[in-house]
Amino acid sequence: MEQLKVDLGSRSYPIFIGSGLISAADCFAPYVRGRDVMIVSNETVAPLYLEKLEKTLSGFNVHSVILKDGEQYKNLDGIESIITALLRNDAGRDVTLVALGGGVVGDMTGFAAACYQRGVDFIQCATTLLAHVDSSVGGKTGVNHPLGKNMIGAFHQPKSVVIDTDTLRTLDRRQLSAGLAEVIKYGIMWDSDFFRFLEDSMDSIMSLDEESLVRTIKTCCSIKAEVVHEDERESGVRALLNLGHTFGHAIECHEGYGVWLHGEGVAAGMVCAARVAVYLGRMSEDEFRRITALLERASLPVQVPADMNYDIFYENMIHDKKVRNGRIRYVIPDGIGHAGVLDDIPAELVSRAIEDLRKKC
Amino acid sequence: MEQLKVDLGSRSYPIFIGSGLISAADCFAPYVRGRDVMIVSNETVAPLYLEKLEKTLSGFNVHSVILKDGEQYKNLDGIESIITALLRNDAGRDVTLVALGGGVVGDMTGFAAACYQRGVDFIQCATTLLAHVDSSVGGKTGVNHPLGKNMIGAFHQPKSVVIDTDTLRTLDRRQLSAGLAEVIKYGIMWDSDFFRFLEDSMDSIMSLDEESLVRTIKTCCSIKAEVVHEDERESGVRALLNLGHTFGHAIECHEGYGVWLHGEGVAAGMVCAARVAVYLGRMSEDEFRRITALLERASLPVQVPADMNYDIFYENMIHDKKVRNGRIRYVIPDGIGHAGVLDDIPAELVSRAIEDLRKKC
Repeated sequence: MEQLKVDLGSRSYPIFIGSGLISAADCFAPYVRGRDVMIVSNETVAPLYLEKLEKTLSGFNVHSVILKDGEQYKNLDGIESIITALLRNDAGRDVTLVALGGGVVGDMTGFAAACYQRGVDFIQCATTLLAHVDSSVGGKTGVNHPLGKNMIGAFHQPKSVVIDTDTLRTLDRRQLSAGLAEVIKYGIMWDSDFFRFLEDSMDSIMSLDEESLVRTIKTCCSIKAEVVHEDERESGVRALLNLGHTFGHAIECHEGYGVWLHGEGVAAGMVCAARVAVYLGRMSEDEFRRITALLERASLPVQVPADMNYDIFYENMIHDKKVRNGRIRYVIPDGIGHAGVLDDIPAELVSRAIEDLRKKC
Repeated sequence: MEQLKVDLGSRSYPIFIGSGLISAADCFAPYVRGRDVMIVSNETVAPLYLEKLEKTLSGFNVHSVILKDGEQYKNLDGIESIITALLRNDAGRDVTLVALGGGVVGDMTGFAAACYQRGVDFIQCATTLLAHVDSSVGGKTGVNHPLGKNMIGAFHQPKSVVIDTDTLRTLDRRQLSAGLAEVIKYGIMWDSDFFRFLEDSMDSIMSLDEESLVRTIKTCCSIKAEVVHEDERESGVRALLNLGHTFGHAIECHEGYGVWLHGEGVAAGMVCAARVAVYLGRMSEDEFRRITALLERASLPVQVPADMNYDIFYENMIHDKKVRNGRIRYVIPDGIGHAGVLDDIPAELVSRAIEDLRKKC
């Protein structure tokens, strides 16, 4: 088992990475405050792992609530249903929620924990690659609004993050690829050595080689922990983690939540950002090709939907949380291994990048 | 104009108290972060004060959203409608919300501000006595769930609190009385001198004498600021501010939100707590009579609904946020001027107090 720490003073917490951890009581029990535990999962993950986790937590008074699976259910109604389950089971302020699932389950469980009785504890038990490397760490929680993704939420840090790598063996291939978009993101925005490691190792990662998986997850979590430690509430460097997300959220929102997976949107979004970087002279054509090639090896989209021109992107991006005084702030890579936030990119240039990348009908 | 301060380090903020403050730009403008302001009000208050406040804020880009009036609309749907208005107006993270209304508007606006894009600023402009003396100060925000009051929320402190005493001149008499329940609460749980002042001054308060009103509001806000400074997140002394609320919430919830006003529930709830105190030997019959007499002079209920026996109270109280390990923790006065939290009161004793106070059909 590997262990990392997210260092946030009194809100610090461990990240456990390894095989079989859903059965490791030590990763959970010390982080449960009272007697009551509410596991939140979804109808895909619960049949696979709920019973196992309930057994691990058998010393506690355990209840569970099962949500529908999909980004389209990540809304306030879902939060209300978690709160209803808590109230029906007379859960007090000392209840601990456990998110058993991917990014959607984690974001919703975290937000329900942030809001229930004005804040209770929660633990992330992440079962998708995307949750392993990104969403389970850092305390961003929330739900979507029909007019914008993650528009309703809170910063609420978990008490521990448990990453059982065995869960990747039951993960849908499309979900695995979606997670790899966030993995590749760390290489582009932060760590060129890691990008090269991914170029060397993509085949073994795709075939679920344990050593490659653990090294990949550990590297991503280390970068995320470092960035979150420096800037918990995203007033600076943390914004770089949104590489590809401004364009990606626009695709997710316009195509309908759940049609494109979040990671798929991020992949196409990173290609948009990289294309803009080429036009700005911040990236060579060769680097651009390395990025698209790696994404394609991970079975990820490298084009934007045929029905989305610049105007449609703009309409969906203007609600982005990075917008300031009506200006869209884009995260744009600087070669491979660095990125910056730019708020003065000419619309024509963004439009040209999008046109380059539109799928031909 | 009187000014107090809630001292919470980097989250400190001023409370302004006086006549005509809705028109005082200095109470608002320095606390608005960006260009965008969203005023949240309701259909009762907006026709009276919205235009005036918009004029005060005319240097900003001001929008407004008008909610329905009443506790029964204090729910997640209301939060979603505020968020929709923010998104429709392309509000970014630098928007400032202004709550123009009473406790319900303030709680909802504060919670919407806590959640929108994971947290934006807000200002409390309180227009009811209850909001003046209690709900606008201290950062408790949230909404109700059908199974329990204020079960979904956040601690989120305002940037300033503006109390325009003129608003009491347009306030419904029943709402004025509801606010007086919270006023009398401070006397019972914290300050016997203030309780005596209220006994001396209730007639001039009820006739809206400016000097008595300002002294009353200022005293209540001072006590609240002191308590919140000591215990922002209610791990200790702040719980005493819930005197009467455990019983009161049960009445509100069982009778249907909006049927009993919050302050009316608190009044009857304080009588329950005082009756229990008498049985526990913590209060004399004479002190009990002084409490009910003062509440009655403020036109407040001193009995509980005829249809609520102990079992019904219990069912509605077990979701109270003060419950720990399944035990209800009651705030019980200790004479007049002090109170404590007790978790070992025999059910029979609480039941006897409730039976004493049930309205005869």
